[in-house]
Amino acid sequence: METPTAAMLVIGDEILSGRTRDSNMHHLAKELTQAGITLAEARVVPDAHARIVAAVRALSGDYTHVFTSGGIGPTHDDITADAVADAFGTPIGVRADARALLVAHYAKTGTELNAARLRMARIPEGATLIENPISAAPGFSLHNVHVMAGVPAIFEAMVASVLPRLRGGPPVLSRNLRVEVPEGEVAEALGAAAAVFADVSMGSYPFIRAGRYGTNLVLRSPDAARLAEAVAHLHATLPAPAVEE
Amino acid sequence: METPTAAMLVIGDEILSGRTRDSNMHHLAKELTQAGITLAEARVVPDAHARIVAAVRALSGDYTHVFTSGGIGPTHDDITADAVADAFGTPIGVRADARALLVAHYAKTGTELNAARLRMARIPEGATLIENPISAAPGFSLHNVHVMAGVPAIFEAMVASVLPRLRGGPPVLSRNLRVEVPEGEVAEALGAAAAVFADVSMGSYPFIRAGRYGTNLVLRSPDAARLAEAVAHLHATLPAPAVEE
Repeated sequence: METPTAAMLVIGDEILSGRTRDSNMHHLAKELTQAGITLAEARVVPDAHARIVAAVRALSGDYTHVFTSGGIGPTHDDITADAVADAFGTPIGVRADARALLVAHYAKTGTELNAARLRMARIPEGATLIENPISAAPGFSLHNVHVMAGVPAIFEAMVASVLPRLRGGPPVLSRNLRVEVPEGEVAEALGAAAAVFADVSMGSYPFIRAGRYGTNLVLRSPDAARLAEAVAHLHATLPAPAVEE
Repeated sequence: METPTAAMLVIGDEILSGRTRDSNMHHLAKELTQAGITLAEARVVPDAHARIVAAVRALSGDYTHVFTSGGIGPTHDDITADAVADAFGTPIGVRADARALLVAHYAKTGTELNAARLRMARIPEGATLIENPISAAPGFSLHNVHVMAGVPAIFEAMVASVLPRLRGGPPVLSRNLRVEVPEGEVAEALGAAAAVFADVSMGSYPFIRAGRYGTNLVLRSPDAARLAEAVAHLHATLPAPAVEE
């Protein structure tokens, strides 16, 4: 069974200007790994129609899934829904099912469903709504693109409602070996192991703790037995003791 | 004077797997904004030669500058320097000036400059070295691509040494108005103001604090006078009092 791939598209001037630190990419990366979907690329683009359209077209062609965050609120700079519709040449307008969600939500709080808020019911034809348990205004899935809010609490809730719908591959398992010597000391043994175990991904991540250099070696594979063999190989060949964490 | 543009290219499996949370993008975004360079796009790609080559080619053609982070250490998964050289068809090998930096650094600590560490002196022909005041192994600038380490402390030090070399445009100024009503209440006035002040970027960022909805309105422009006019316009037209923060 082939492992599905995914791209993340973060939409928002505030990320690129440094005003806001994106946290959605890291959340999605962890969730996709657990779901057996490989996050293969991420991009951040500004609130600019042509840029969103181009990125959606490129990524939706290259990967099994695309997840977007940001730009689906009520203000003039919320242009993601229209851009995603345009990327596929799909008509978009206020949809009755989305409007009904907003009507019910605002009725509870006695808030007016004004023209700005009604923009949040603009959904491309044929898209499937993504539930928003926090503030009602839905996301949507159009073809292989899943459009979600940028506010982290809402993004995370939407990811939780979309992921169970998608087919994952075998989850990628990971093992972490920590050695208390610098990267330059383990590089040779690690490179040799990576050549022997070409099917196991091996990453090397240096750290400095209390003034001493160390290295985390991360091994990843969907095959637990191969992972165990690779870990045993490293224990036998590394020039310093490794502790599994 | 036209504002230079930039892209960030984050290289590393560990970001896409969710093991590590990238912080370099946010740091660079803030520094570029202060330097009067517009960060127009960011991408994250895995440690895969062809993917890095393709991203470097695309981004270096589209923007004034490209900043990369990650993949310039001593291990087998550190392939950024070779990929950037290939992207431009530039020969690469151990360069005497980079080697001398490593020799001096390791001599101080009595550490062996083994074959793995010597890989960090592989620098493309014609590239300018970027100083690494922390662990000596240099980054480099080749054409408009600035190649830096992924470890945040080293990345930040390298950014500090590269940025003063680059020509910035007029810094983009920013003003932030906070209103204690939801986005849906300010959307109409904000959209109208954005249409009047097409040269001032206006963003709307909802928040929830102590259970109450509010909105931050962020106005950005290099022109302080136009910003002041736009702020005054909003004070006069918003449906609720705005506090400048």
